[in-house]
Amino acid sequence: MREEEYLQSLHFNSLRLEDGSIVNMSLPIVLAIDDATKEAIGESPDVALAGQGGDLVAILRRVQIFKHNKEERIARTWGTTAPGLPYVEKAIDPAGDWLIGGDLELLEPIKYNDGLDHYRLTPAELRAEFDRRGADAVFAFQLRNPVHNGHALLMNDTRRRLLDLGFKNPLLLLHPWGFHQTGRRSLGRSDGAAQEGEFHFKIKSFVLEDGVLDPETTIVAIFPSPMHYAGPTEVQWHAKARINAGANFYIVGRDPAGMGHPLEKRDLYDPDHGKKVLSMAPGLEKLNILPFKVAAYDTAQGKMAFFDPSRAKDFLFISGTKKRREPPSGFMCPGGWEVLVNYYKSLQAKEADQKPAPVAV
Amino acid sequence: MREEEYLQSLHFNSLRLEDGSIVNMSLPIVLAIDDATKEAIGESPDVALAGQGGDLVAILRRVQIFKHNKEERIARTWGTTAPGLPYVEKAIDPAGDWLIGGDLELLEPIKYNDGLDHYRLTPAELRAEFDRRGADAVFAFQLRNPVHNGHALLMNDTRRRLLDLGFKNPLLLLHPWGFHQTGRRSLGRSDGAAQEGEFHFKIKSFVLEDGVLDPETTIVAIFPSPMHYAGPTEVQWHAKARINAGANFYIVGRDPAGMGHPLEKRDLYDPDHGKKVLSMAPGLEKLNILPFKVAAYDTAQGKMAFFDPSRAKDFLFISGTKKRREPPSGFMCPGGWEVLVNYYKSLQAKEADQKPAPVAV
Repeated sequence: MREEEYLQSLHFNSLRLEDGSIVNMSLPIVLAIDDATKEAIGESPDVALAGQGGDLVAILRRVQIFKHNKEERIARTWGTTAPGLPYVEKAIDPAGDWLIGGDLELLEPIKYNDGLDHYRLTPAELRAEFDRRGADAVFAFQLRNPVHNGHALLMNDTRRRLLDLGFKNPLLLLHPWGFHQTGRRSLGRSDGAAQEGEFHFKIKSFVLEDGVLDPETTIVAIFPSPMHYAGPTEVQWHAKARINAGANFYIVGRDPAGMGHPLEKRDLYDPDHGKKVLSMAPGLEKLNILPFKVAAYDTAQGKMAFFDPSRAKDFLFISGTKKRREPPSGFMCPGGWEVLVNYYKSLQAKEADQKPAPVAV
Repeated sequence: MREEEYLQSLHFNSLRLEDGSIVNMSLPIVLAIDDATKEAIGESPDVALAGQGGDLVAILRRVQIFKHNKEERIARTWGTTAPGLPYVEKAIDPAGDWLIGGDLELLEPIKYNDGLDHYRLTPAELRAEFDRRGADAVFAFQLRNPVHNGHALLMNDTRRRLLDLGFKNPLLLLHPWGFHQTGRRSLGRSDGAAQEGEFHFKIKSFVLEDGVLDPETTIVAIFPSPMHYAGPTEVQWHAKARINAGANFYIVGRDPAGMGHPLEKRDLYDPDHGKKVLSMAPGLEKLNILPFKVAAYDTAQGKMAFFDPSRAKDFLFISGTKKRREPPSGFMCPGGWEVLVNYYKSLQAKEADQKPAPVAV
């Protein structure tokens, strides 16, 4: 982003295009540089972007360099400047005091060679895949936790409701967040972040292999965006990015992209604000928002089921299963559970040294 | 505002109306109440609003009470949560933890009986006055400082430029900010705030009486809005409110509604952001923004003149005249200067006890 787009994003959560149309854009997509890099660029109109190995990956044309007012960016994005926001600590605090924007010319698709590149589909590739499969509706589910059978229940139920509405072939875009982008700076290339991504995708494979979700009507891809935990501001980006990728239905729950206040014993955001803000967001007028139904483990049926408040005592909530060595039967497919248990064991071993990655069950 | 409008204002600086049109609204207009008042209201659908003397002034119909998340409101409005923001300290910190919104039914125009009520014109009254005078263009000037001859030069020059553009009868809306609203809570009814307003208006009368501005083409009215010093967020409100009152040209300068950072030795806002944000603001697409030309005291000519960088040494900037006992001849009309000197003397006498009101020359 150049400054004009950056300011519109911060102040209006949307951009006005030259033809007068409005595009939602609630998080600025910016590249920070330090004084030395700014100095080195000088008056050059075009700048090469190098990968971690020094390989040329893109060219930024007709660049503009402008001030990175971190405090203002943080305040307007998170609605707080309290210390302890994970994305701020990882990606903004250590970043340079300047931002550089321009026309981005990617030289070739970026590969990570970690065995997951086939999950890295561009919006155009995703749209083409939906077309190829003849989708007449695409629903997306923003997932930051490992898929368990409660999620699967919700996704299968959503498909059924769309069929009831008259759609013939509604497809699910299962689009969990990526990792290289979040983890790179703080965790290094080869540990936590990539490991966490692999863990997510291993579980997903089991979910599909075990038939919990139907591979024919499900497309799994990496959402290449770091979690900001920016609540009502971020949920717009989560929805807008999926619209870009071809989705027209978006499932949103309570307190999307929320977190606890870093300093106070309360939620950082009003848990209802995410859905409210999303429903009024500029540029998202045509989005169909689907409610998130809460699923929990139904001890009476021995499986995950939608919560029924009339017999609340029968339900175990997911958080209650977090610390168990064995899942209740029917909580998650067995292969997925094994991956999850091993992953958390490895995290616990590291906990003395570093904070756990922001993953919860 | 009810919560739906409040959230749109905070997140998008604009409201989407039922017909799909967009209205700029960058500052939330809200009424805070405390726990006891919330309790007293209970489930009542309608609430009476009383003036300071207990007199009924309005009814708020079909009320909604929602949380007043002060930290988030401050962060998203000012882009900082640093202590020391004047409006926050006066009007938000001491306010209640709830906001109440509804349909406002004003029972009759509110009078302050301070001799200035005839300057309190509603937007509809201002539009009617412009029509009565046959204006074909109205230009507005947001003024937080006493009118001096440099301002007058700018305003007269703007009128000339509009005539050059082919307008036959461009009128000036001289619309300085009001005072009762800012001052009421912290200063009490009878001192600083009202005194400051009187001072501003006394100067304005002299400016008009002395013919520095032409009363035929100038309308003076009180802008009944407290200064927030919220920079790029507030300047939109300054412009939008004047559009509501019939203006179609708006003069904007460097760092509008800006202030120094409360804790750091820098401007709180990038001085160029106000104009940039204003030029891109949703709902203000039809606003004509006029640049503010800088005037200074030209010692060579012995009068206020537009700054000419080629002979910079000839110019005295206004800030340099602040501490003088006598103005340079031609800085301000004599009657106005006398009011100004007396006002600042009275302020200095009070300075030991309290902070000065936020007025600068």
